[in-house]
Amino acid sequence: MDVPLESLGELRKTHYTSDLSAEDDGKEVVIGGWVAKNRSLGGLKFFILQDREGSCQVTAKDDNPDVPDDVKKLIPALGIMWVVMVKGKIRADQRAPGGFEVVPLQVKVLNKTMQQLPLVEGTNAELDTRLNNRVLDLRFKRNQAIFKVQHVMFNAFREFFTQNHFTEISTPKIIGSATEGGTELFPIVYFNKEAFLSQSAQLYKEQMSSVFERVFEIAPCYRAEASHTKRHLCEILTLDIEMGFANIYDVLSTFERALVHVLQAINKECASQLKTLGQKLLVPELPFKRYTYSEVIDLLQTKGKYKIEWGEDIATDAYRVLDKFMKGYFYIIKWPTAAKPFYIQPCEDDEKVSESFDLQYGFLELASGGTRVHNKDFLIQRLREKKLNPVSFEDHLKAFDFGMPPHAGLGFGIGRFLTVLTGAQDIREAVLYPRTPDRLTP
Amino acid sequence: MDVPLESLGELRKTHYTSDLSAEDDGKEVVIGGWVAKNRSLGGLKFFILQDREGSCQVTAKDDNPDVPDDVKKLIPALGIMWVVMVKGKIRADQRAPGGFEVVPLQVKVLNKTMQQLPLVEGTNAELDTRLNNRVLDLRFKRNQAIFKVQHVMFNAFREFFTQNHFTEISTPKIIGSATEGGTELFPIVYFNKEAFLSQSAQLYKEQMSSVFERVFEIAPCYRAEASHTKRHLCEILTLDIEMGFANIYDVLSTFERALVHVLQAINKECASQLKTLGQKLLVPELPFKRYTYSEVIDLLQTKGKYKIEWGEDIATDAYRVLDKFMKGYFYIIKWPTAAKPFYIQPCEDDEKVSESFDLQYGFLELASGGTRVHNKDFLIQRLREKKLNPVSFEDHLKAFDFGMPPHAGLGFGIGRFLTVLTGAQDIREAVLYPRTPDRLTP
Repeated sequence: MDVPLESLGELRKTHYTSDLSAEDDGKEVVIGGWVAKNRSLGGLKFFILQDREGSCQVTAKDDNPDVPDDVKKLIPALGIMWVVMVKGKIRADQRAPGGFEVVPLQVKVLNKTMQQLPLVEGTNAELDTRLNNRVLDLRFKRNQAIFKVQHVMFNAFREFFTQNHFTEISTPKIIGSATEGGTELFPIVYFNKEAFLSQSAQLYKEQMSSVFERVFEIAPCYRAEASHTKRHLCEILTLDIEMGFANIYDVLSTFERALVHVLQAINKECASQLKTLGQKLLVPELPFKRYTYSEVIDLLQTKGKYKIEWGEDIATDAYRVLDKFMKGYFYIIKWPTAAKPFYIQPCEDDEKVSESFDLQYGFLELASGGTRVHNKDFLIQRLREKKLNPVSFEDHLKAFDFGMPPHAGLGFGIGRFLTVLTGAQDIREAVLYPRTPDRLTP
Repeated sequence: MDVPLESLGELRKTHYTSDLSAEDDGKEVVIGGWVAKNRSLGGLKFFILQDREGSCQVTAKDDNPDVPDDVKKLIPALGIMWVVMVKGKIRADQRAPGGFEVVPLQVKVLNKTMQQLPLVEGTNAELDTRLNNRVLDLRFKRNQAIFKVQHVMFNAFREFFTQNHFTEISTPKIIGSATEGGTELFPIVYFNKEAFLSQSAQLYKEQMSSVFERVFEIAPCYRAEASHTKRHLCEILTLDIEMGFANIYDVLSTFERALVHVLQAINKECASQLKTLGQKLLVPELPFKRYTYSEVIDLLQTKGKYKIEWGEDIATDAYRVLDKFMKGYFYIIKWPTAAKPFYIQPCEDDEKVSESFDLQYGFLELASGGTRVHNKDFLIQRLREKKLNPVSFEDHLKAFDFGMPPHAGLGFGIGRFLTVLTGAQDIREAVLYPRTPDRLTP
């Protein structure tokens, strides 16, 4: 059958599939979406129509005089993922999924698909194949659930920070010099000047803590690292917060409350998505456990039988050893000063360690933060100790002449957190269009 | 007096200045912020402490035995914008601003400033001087108000779109080829590949309308245009929306409701900020007026005596002529197809014009959008008509093989809207750290 395309015309959705139920028996509705399945069994023709909220069965029996003949003819010709609008009547039927079906009075085909789709829901495809066909991949129920959870997460974080006197800010992603003095930056051709993509909102959010006191931002940042792990991307969405008139301990206690708020919101608003994902989110007790770096090293050396020296970074395989002893969300505080960036404040009583922390979920690092240096002279000294040139930080240092309060904050990886929430095995699953050293498309 | 710096220690703010009032006479509070003014009049020493929410007067009378001697000595030595914490008692006093003052029991100096600050609140400084000293500039009341309004605007938009079944998305800002085929892109050195900064979320949001149906994003985009106007920047925050199973008219009616929702939220939550800014926000009646492009050209030619041909773009000076006849928010619909990008759908009954629109506020263009082409063959034809190579759009075109619904959307300039809301005369005032061809710092 040669199926013509029709225009949307005046036809508009009255409902999502999730709005419908057997209780509305006899009600006329207009639904729209994609053909997920299509079957003809003798005198019975039906298809599953899916939309962003779920799916329902559209059934045309040959002997049903309510269904126009052209619709009876059309249904067997519908291809998988064709785009259709259906005007129909709800009919309660215990045998149908959800206890009802839609009897079609009008079916419009709005668009068709290629003959052989490269992905089929429910079969296992390589992640790269999925990403190469991302639009189709994302239409599958599991992926719809991941990004619904992300949406609720975004709103819950913003709600928490708004309620707790934070101002949302937007800082530039094009920067004139290398923040943090990092070498792993993407250069940009900016007219006739040198510029880079920002690897972190760090310096800008610090400056803004001297204006709005408490600030937050959810925005992309960029890392030109040739990492090929399941936890690293070149374009990363981060949540940055910074608090004026505060130190590390204010950040620790504020952020753990933010996390609990977000987990509660997801449990409340995403019950069906969590079911789809097979996830149970336990809301952790407050306060989170706080281990010092030294305690962790000690644990690794003794109970973990892991070879590591005080002062070394804790690598992922070390965290996997820790996994036996330290589960769920916990903080590791007081990292060696030498291992931390110039802007991290050393502890007053022991300058070898610093007012710094990581937030872990098991072996996965979710956030990093601490008290910042707020004294200009000391900051310049710290820059020099890190072999950085204070002249390159002129604009940032200027802010310390204008009245910089003590401040502290953190940077938190949205994508990594989304893998924790949804059980995704690879961060590329938790980003709509991931960017890696090898992937610039789609 | 040599004033030592003290650490924050255990001292934490109990209140913002805006929380205090004469009714709390006798209450002990801890406040913190910046010294905005400092006066000594005979036996009376006082300073104005400002924080993110406002300001209040801290008063030490020589003959008040409650004020320790060291505090009496310290106050006259405080410099402008020094960072202080004050533990004190509220004392109702009709002569003080707001009807009360804080009698200091303890004053800690947390940080000092340079001797001669480059900006003083209430004096007129060049915008470039202000931007060069942005942290100091932003601390002034008017600027605090602008970005508080922005925060409320962000939340109100997201609330509206969440309530109206939109999913928040995050699309990549690093792209492998030139979207929209534009030439005004910033190139990036992406490992050993060619890449660019995204000039719009257009193609990605279109793709996502075939997954989540209704999507929105607030994110930066990048324009390498050497424009030097009060309305253009190189890094622009935009709100992008896209609606599946919809056309231009769905977008027009949805977005005008969104704007009304936002204006109502700002009126409700930012009364004091609007007062500071001298702004009254009238909530426009719905629906917004919809002029066709042809009507506007006609009006310009006849009533406006303005020389313009049908088919030409409407320049800013033409809009300024229109300003006499068309005020506030209005739509201009049905632009010439030739003037619009390849993805805009021509009208069915007259292909010379298209299902496109601009949203204007007087002479200022705030948004641009329309119905998109959703038929793959026609989209390829449109690309060719625009002298673009379909091969460069391979990844985007693929999405049209997977079931693309009819869809429509718009892109809306957050910064421009913020100038309308706050009365800012230049878009650089409405962005924390603006980026122009000449400005990459701070």
